[in-house]
Amino acid sequence: MSDILVVGSVALDSVKTTAGKSVEALGGSATYFALSASYFSSVALVGVVGQDFPREHRRTLERRGVDLEGLKAAKGKTFRWSGKYGKDAANAETLATHLNVFKEFKPVLSEAQRKAPVVFLANIDPELQSEVLAQMKGPALVACDTMNYWIESKPAAIKKLLAKVDIFFSNDQEAMRLTGAPNALQAAEVLADWGPSVVVIKKGEHGALMKVGSKFFVFPAYPLARIKDPTGAGDTFAGGFLGYLASSASYKDVAHLKRAMAYGTTMASFNVQDFSTKNIEDLERDVIDERFHDLAERMMIPRADEFLKARRAVAA
Amino acid sequence: MSDILVVGSVALDSVKTTAGKSVEALGGSATYFALSASYFSSVALVGVVGQDFPREHRRTLERRGVDLEGLKAAKGKTFRWSGKYGKDAANAETLATHLNVFKEFKPVLSEAQRKAPVVFLANIDPELQSEVLAQMKGPALVACDTMNYWIESKPAAIKKLLAKVDIFFSNDQEAMRLTGAPNALQAAEVLADWGPSVVVIKKGEHGALMKVGSKFFVFPAYPLARIKDPTGAGDTFAGGFLGYLASSASYKDVAHLKRAMAYGTTMASFNVQDFSTKNIEDLERDVIDERFHDLAERMMIPRADEFLKARRAVAA
Repeated sequence: MSDILVVGSVALDSVKTTAGKSVEALGGSATYFALSASYFSSVALVGVVGQDFPREHRRTLERRGVDLEGLKAAKGKTFRWSGKYGKDAANAETLATHLNVFKEFKPVLSEAQRKAPVVFLANIDPELQSEVLAQMKGPALVACDTMNYWIESKPAAIKKLLAKVDIFFSNDQEAMRLTGAPNALQAAEVLADWGPSVVVIKKGEHGALMKVGSKFFVFPAYPLARIKDPTGAGDTFAGGFLGYLASSASYKDVAHLKRAMAYGTTMASFNVQDFSTKNIEDLERDVIDERFHDLAERMMIPRADEFLKARRAVAA
Repeated sequence: MSDILVVGSVALDSVKTTAGKSVEALGGSATYFALSASYFSSVALVGVVGQDFPREHRRTLERRGVDLEGLKAAKGKTFRWSGKYGKDAANAETLATHLNVFKEFKPVLSEAQRKAPVVFLANIDPELQSEVLAQMKGPALVACDTMNYWIESKPAAIKKLLAKVDIFFSNDQEAMRLTGAPNALQAAEVLADWGPSVVVIKKGEHGALMKVGSKFFVFPAYPLARIKDPTGAGDTFAGGFLGYLASSASYKDVAHLKRAMAYGTTMASFNVQDFSTKNIEDLERDVIDERFHDLAERMMIPRADEFLKARRAVAA
């Protein structure tokens, strides 16, 4: 049995950015999540692809130990998405979406999958997310994500889902739209009222914030002057976050949750440095930990105590 | 002799935000800077007001120990600015600017002012900033700020000034406009090439980043779900930063520079919680230090070492 079950999309993405382009490359929310989480925990993926899904992409996931028993190959074509990013890497312009076999995605979990202690319901129809959750046998930790499309079309279903979720990941724009709040912090307050004990708001290049109980924690992004392709950064973040957390001693310990934020940030920073999943396909855990500590060093505030003590000594 | 000399505007601001309004309240870049820096170092202010400048505003600065010998009262009216903020607190819409006596501002420094070890050239005409700097007698640390108006009208003068400056403060939009760089990090790289050994890019609610040598340091903002008036946040940040740094043992020590970022962040967070300068007029140093440590706690990443050690022990 795997530590984490992820249910979501597996896709072929064609992306143009100011740094170049990729054509029908490996993508999808469950893909990015699973690869990222795989450096910390064992992951089983539930999704659907078409008969045209390249064998090499399947192997990419298998090489990272991702359990693909739940990745069905259905008759038809794999989900395809194409998009374009301008100078503002925060927002993709969708050029085309072909759901193909993903349109009929109705996951039925196996006995082993139902028993996973941690489940991540990646960005799919919120009613489907609830149906998947109903199949689980008392998971210790439930997390989910969503996107604008569902926020516009099924906000009530998202709200209903959130009542059963422990950790909700959202980007700032989506969180504000879903709640009607004027800023990310107020949005997180509303979202926490709906159920999740932990709300994570992702702000892309501006970092992320996390609400745990009544307290906000704040984290900058890893500083990168040049990025190639922001696609999948949010799911890669969630993968690093939950992958680390699932491997930790406690899901509620604030120290672990803060490290989870930093591992999410670290994994997302690797992801955006190349197209598709290229830069998160074969990292080394030591390389990840090195950047984790480098990030900590770049944002650490040395305590002022010693300085204050010295100042008072001089003043006295 | 004061620790820091600040040259800039002293104004009467009328501001509308979603939280209310203020009318002809104390404002100006030198005002916010001086009040904020005064909690850490002694400050002398050079500026000009009209004969209508309220006595109470002068006393507000004097109560914080700000040396106002350089604040001239000229014939005419005080500089007035009025602006409006919508839901997006990042950008003010200017409703009116009346430079009044500030139009003829030509600071001539006294002997004592010329000897200040630290000088902050707040947002005024960059040619005037250079003239002020030329009057200084070998300051140990020179810092400056600027704004869009000068970036549009006198970019060459700003570039010339930066060659003589140690620390440059800018917000992200201005830095990108001045350099033509597509993001804040690349803008900081260009700005550092022009001269300053430290470049600080302020991003409002998204925090700030600092380039020292070849290294970027990153800091989130203090999390506030509700703010009343963002006016002066940038100058208050610079005041906390330089006020702390001027009081420290070394202007080049990275630990001090990181604490300076956190004190800048802390002071700005107090400032935006009320209109005008109300919330930075009589703070206590202990209250400031408490929020400084609270900020550090909210962004601290507990080192992963212990966890990794435990994980390896289990694996072995």
